[in-house]
Amino acid sequence: MKPNTSKFAPKNGFLSLPPINGIRLSAVDAEISKSNKPDLMLAEISSHSTICGLLTNSKTCSAAVAKCRENLKDHQDQERLLGIIVNSGNANAFTGTHGEDVVNKTLLSVAKYLNTVPKNIFVASTGVIGEYLDSQKITSKIEKLVAELKPSSFQIAAEAIMTTDTFPKGAHEEFILNGIPIKINGIAKGSGMIAPNMATMLVFIFSDISIEANILQKIVIKCNRTSFNSITVDSDTSTSDSLFVVATGKAKMTAIQSLKDPRATKFYKYLSKLMLNLAHLVVKDGEGLTKFIEVKVTGSNSHKSAHKVGKTIAESPLVKTAFAGEDPNWGRVVMAIGKSGVNIDKEKISIWFGNHLVAQNGSISETYNELDVAKYMRNDSLLVTVDLGLGSKEASIYTCDLTHDYISINADYRS
Amino acid sequence: MKPNTSKFAPKNGFLSLPPINGIRLSAVDAEISKSNKPDLMLAEISSHSTICGLLTNSKTCSAAVAKCRENLKDHQDQERLLGIIVNSGNANAFTGTHGEDVVNKTLLSVAKYLNTVPKNIFVASTGVIGEYLDSQKITSKIEKLVAELKPSSFQIAAEAIMTTDTFPKGAHEEFILNGIPIKINGIAKGSGMIAPNMATMLVFIFSDISIEANILQKIVIKCNRTSFNSITVDSDTSTSDSLFVVATGKAKMTAIQSLKDPRATKFYKYLSKLMLNLAHLVVKDGEGLTKFIEVKVTGSNSHKSAHKVGKTIAESPLVKTAFAGEDPNWGRVVMAIGKSGVNIDKEKISIWFGNHLVAQNGSISETYNELDVAKYMRNDSLLVTVDLGLGSKEASIYTCDLTHDYISINADYRS
Repeated sequence: MKPNTSKFAPKNGFLSLPPINGIRLSAVDAEISKSNKPDLMLAEISSHSTICGLLTNSKTCSAAVAKCRENLKDHQDQERLLGIIVNSGNANAFTGTHGEDVVNKTLLSVAKYLNTVPKNIFVASTGVIGEYLDSQKITSKIEKLVAELKPSSFQIAAEAIMTTDTFPKGAHEEFILNGIPIKINGIAKGSGMIAPNMATMLVFIFSDISIEANILQKIVIKCNRTSFNSITVDSDTSTSDSLFVVATGKAKMTAIQSLKDPRATKFYKYLSKLMLNLAHLVVKDGEGLTKFIEVKVTGSNSHKSAHKVGKTIAESPLVKTAFAGEDPNWGRVVMAIGKSGVNIDKEKISIWFGNHLVAQNGSISETYNELDVAKYMRNDSLLVTVDLGLGSKEASIYTCDLTHDYISINADYRS
Repeated sequence: MKPNTSKFAPKNGFLSLPPINGIRLSAVDAEISKSNKPDLMLAEISSHSTICGLLTNSKTCSAAVAKCRENLKDHQDQERLLGIIVNSGNANAFTGTHGEDVVNKTLLSVAKYLNTVPKNIFVASTGVIGEYLDSQKITSKIEKLVAELKPSSFQIAAEAIMTTDTFPKGAHEEFILNGIPIKINGIAKGSGMIAPNMATMLVFIFSDISIEANILQKIVIKCNRTSFNSITVDSDTSTSDSLFVVATGKAKMTAIQSLKDPRATKFYKYLSKLMLNLAHLVVKDGEGLTKFIEVKVTGSNSHKSAHKVGKTIAESPLVKTAFAGEDPNWGRVVMAIGKSGVNIDKEKISIWFGNHLVAQNGSISETYNELDVAKYMRNDSLLVTVDLGLGSKEASIYTCDLTHDYISINADYRS
């Protein structure tokens, strides 16, 4: 089925993203996906840029992911352009040597038209797993893509990477570093098979900041922990999760070369905000969702335990269906805490739905009022807070409910 | 919503279970659940019986589970009767000291009317988590339950433990040990919150065999591994999972005192068969199911890895919705293998749907025919085989599909 646009889609449509010095984009319909929209996009990145990427830990990752991992390890030719080429409609995963061949042909073709080297090119593919992708569909469009590159094409690029997404996702931050204005733009896709494992869906972030690659990588890993690694739509991890962050260095500044540089801290703050914003947009387009839910776990011995408890609650089908039914069935939250494998003391747990304390000291709260909590459940955005009463560490996981539309979308996605 | 009876329900209704010497049962409607059926059952077990139990590893287990764990560790009074009392409609979990009080009052009342000691009594509760259970509803019915005990009441007992189950579940085995006929009866409940962790839903198994408790325990653990620990409906682990196996010793035989006794092997064989049969019935009443699915993982380095890969496939919402849509979307099986965390070599994986080889050598099979496989998907019972090509260990996981009815049942279970 073709789902309606998510009610969480930005009211004013796609956020207008300003040009980033050093970045040009384009997108075309290469007829890879059945949908009637662009499905192939190209980003051209000026020379002397730094790029870092986080890729899925899936053991059945796609040929594109494997090649990107290789290219990220290799040193890019700094004197030449970089490129990112992305298709939707076919994940080119579990497609064997055929799939590798498609990736290699794509690299060669893009490198040729951008007048650069293949190791400077990064490929991402998203869509159906296991179906062969016709490399001709991609390579025949590269010349046109290069001809149409524009600094302003963020929206069409965001549209080209959509699959079951119901709206294109963009985010922007601007800030001043020692008097120099810095911009960051990001686009993302993803609405099902979302439970990123050390990486994320397809996310592309561009900034004009000047920063060394290893410093950029450390900051991105840290931002990722609380953004894309803290979301889950359906607990399923894609074969294609890829996040790239590009810094063109076009801002008139000396490069950030240390994490101790105060400018690194400021950049971290804004990048973190942008990545969390994009991660929320991915959840807000979760397949079939009617509720956006934050599960906040506090009072934990460790961030890892808090994260695990939150993830287990956020991934429980029984918790998610209760939310879909607007049922304040906090007993299912208790069940999920219990199955998480984390050592807890059930007498010390407190649970809130919004500001309503629903359970503490090992049983229902004395102030629990079913009608009040049921009324709270009718909100579009919900907060579940679980305090474990064991320490001071915390984590938030962002998720959505599990509805009939998730079933409809996924029971006939390919048909 | 009230679901229709599962199409996998036994065609001839509840299997007629013969009396087991030493066992008497009864059930009444104690108005604990809203449904119009018995919801409280009692099993009386003759003195000199052995009992063993496997209980959930949930960290938020119910008061009943905690007490049973205590009573199983304690030595039962062999000169007195044992009892098992079970209610449906309320899990009495996360109910604090109130819940413990209910369990203690229940033990005292049952012990009094059965003229035995509280430590010989085992309690199980299933239903909504977090709601207080009125002990009066139980204790006021014990006298009547005792008065109505009958050796033939297995069906009403199986009905009394049902919650969202659409049919009562029973299984029976009979065999000859050195000329002595032995019988085993089992009843079970469960259709949602089914991903047992070292234990299971509510399962009660009765035999007239004579066997020492520690030998019985070892055999039960082994049988459990390939039966109840190998099923999953929705990946959610209950707070109340409990399995009890009772041996009354009324068969005219000397007790089995060693695993090396050939009679132990024979008993294992039949108990294992009965437990697998009951475990299958639980899946076949999985909430909203339309397909019964075996995920068989072969060619693994270890049983544990095979089990983990199988469980990850069986619990993937995207795999389960593809089955609901009769879509041979084997790419989602590849995705699930990849996210399982098990070390695999994707080039060595082979995947079959029934007898159809769909993928091997890291891509789609040359003999893959979409129409043939789509036709196979229309069967009620499906087999997915994944060979990892790494060793000789294997495991089977049994599950069902994820449908609209699962959402309907669970989005308004309490309302």
